[in-house]
Amino acid sequence: MTKTELLYEGKAKKIYATEDPEVILAVYKDQATARNGKKKVNVAHKGTLNNQITSHLFNYLKANGVASHFIKQVSATEQLLHKVKMIPLEVVLRNLASGHFETKFAVPHLMQFNRPIVEFYYKSDALDDPFINDAQILALEIATEAQIEALKTKALLVNQVLKQLFDQLGITLVDFKLEFGLTSSGEILLADELSPDNMRLLDKKTQQSLDKDIFRKGLGDMIPAYQEVLHRIEDKEQNANVLS
Amino acid sequence: MTKTELLYEGKAKKIYATEDPEVILAVYKDQATARNGKKKVNVAHKGTLNNQITSHLFNYLKANGVASHFIKQVSATEQLLHKVKMIPLEVVLRNLASGHFETKFAVPHLMQFNRPIVEFYYKSDALDDPFINDAQILALEIATEAQIEALKTKALLVNQVLKQLFDQLGITLVDFKLEFGLTSSGEILLADELSPDNMRLLDKKTQQSLDKDIFRKGLGDMIPAYQEVLHRIEDKEQNANVLS
Ligand SMILES: Nc1ncnc2c1ncn2[C@@H]1O[C@H](COP(=O)(O)OP(=O)(O)OP(=O)(O)O)[C@@H](O)[C@H]1O
Ligand SMILES: Nc1ncnc2c1ncn2[C@@H]1O[C@H](COP(=O)(O)OP(=O)(O)OP(=O)(O)O)[C@@H](O)[C@H]1O
Ligand SMILES: [Mg+2]
Ligand SMILES: [Mg+2]
Repeated sequence: MTKTELLYEGKAKKIYATEDPEVILAVYKDQATARNGKKKVNVAHKGTLNNQITSHLFNYLKANGVASHFIKQVSATEQLLHKVKMIPLEVVLRNLASGHFETKFAVPHLMQFNRPIVEFYYKSDALDDPFINDAQILALEIATEAQIEALKTKALLVNQVLKQLFDQLGITLVDFKLEFGLTSSGEILLADELSPDNMRLLDKKTQQSLDKDIFRKGLGDMIPAYQEVLHRIEDKEQNANVLS
Repeated sequence: MTKTELLYEGKAKKIYATEDPEVILAVYKDQATARNGKKKVNVAHKGTLNNQITSHLFNYLKANGVASHFIKQVSATEQLLHKVKMIPLEVVLRNLASGHFETKFAVPHLMQFNRPIVEFYYKSDALDDPFINDAQILALEIATEAQIEALKTKALLVNQVLKQLFDQLGITLVDFKLEFGLTSSGEILLADELSPDNMRLLDKKTQQSLDKDIFRKGLGDMIPAYQEVLHRIEDKEQNANVLS
């Protein structure tokens, strides 16, 4: 499978068509952005790290019953994906208070919720991705009631699987953002990426961030942290293979 | 029943205790505010108008199956109310796009929704009444799942009853804000007020605002509009009495 036409260039990935109209190829870029692209720099190795982490996590999710658009990693920066029609919602799941939530509701940093919170944001650069509730999604015909329920169920399932995985890696999964798409048959598939760009991860021992907050807050080099996440995932997989 | 201690002075009403610990007295003030109190002026007659309109509407709702805290109007500016423990949520219902919604989602003014939208805002002056979703309400323990569902059902019922009433008065009910409280037995009661301060009303013939938007947008004197709303309600009631 080779890449043909460039379909879309985003902040984190380039999306190419392939010979198969149902399959696309994502190329992970060495670019870090924050504040909707207002802060933007080149960061060597970020593309290969996010490609590898995402590939591992989608494989792990598949093995644990969560289907996604992921087909396979095909090079250091590239992966093949099932093409879907993106649902224009960012699905955010929070286990602990952080980021915008903390400020908006003036709650203590890392306050633990009695149950995970799912939030939707309407993906629109022009509108600055506004926070949206179920009734608004229905009235604006962005998704159906059944789709909204499916998105919530899937986000909670992803959380359950990933929380347990990261726990075993000595990492707290604070929150994350997912995107979903529709297959030609109307099935909802987890899509986009699953990297420290879209998750808040805390080292349980040091309480240090292992995610894009390092870049957002100007705390230093994000690459060693992303490498640390990848290494812990790979170590666990090797141990699992040795034992099996 | 006479008023005793002043319990609370808000932007629109003073709330007094009475000899009955379960009953409070609200005094409607001649004050108009916008932008969370940043814009504020004295407006003669506003208190008596809102007291009368609210009293009529709560009576009308009661006759149509919607219980509220309202006991009775006792003077030009005063009404007796069942004291409740307020639920700190503003419940907004929208039939047509207007105000914040219109800007936030860049939709046409007065766009009609295929179904009414219910929104919750967390009542907190310090936080500026942030927009909140069901999962956040649950995680922050502001209300239970059953209470959230009851608030939505009640808001939709109020909408159904009032929309039909205003329709008969030649007025379009664009949107409105409700507040609810809990009785000592845990029952959820519609509370606060129901006046053109908390509703967007459009004259069907002229498409002019008959509500606080006149003040918010500096379009002129709000009193004739509030009087017009009251007169149309009173005329309908008189006709109904003559006929019955
Ligand atoms: N399986 C898929 N099929 C089609 N499009 C996809 C798929 N997975 C992800 N996408 C889309 O590809 C783009 C990925 O690029 P990138 O993450 O760099 O975008 P971005 O800069 O975050 O911008 P935005 O997400 O706002 O478009 C996103 O628009 C994403 O929604
Ligand atoms: N039945 C009731 N029992 C107890 N409190 C009530 C009842 N009905 C309304 N209230 C409360 O009384 C106050 C009414 O005052 P007003 O509407 O002037 O307040 P406000 O300036 O809008 O400020 P805020 O609503 O933010 O407190 C509100 O706090 C309202 O929640
Ligand atoms: Mg993206
Ligand atoms: Mg008020």
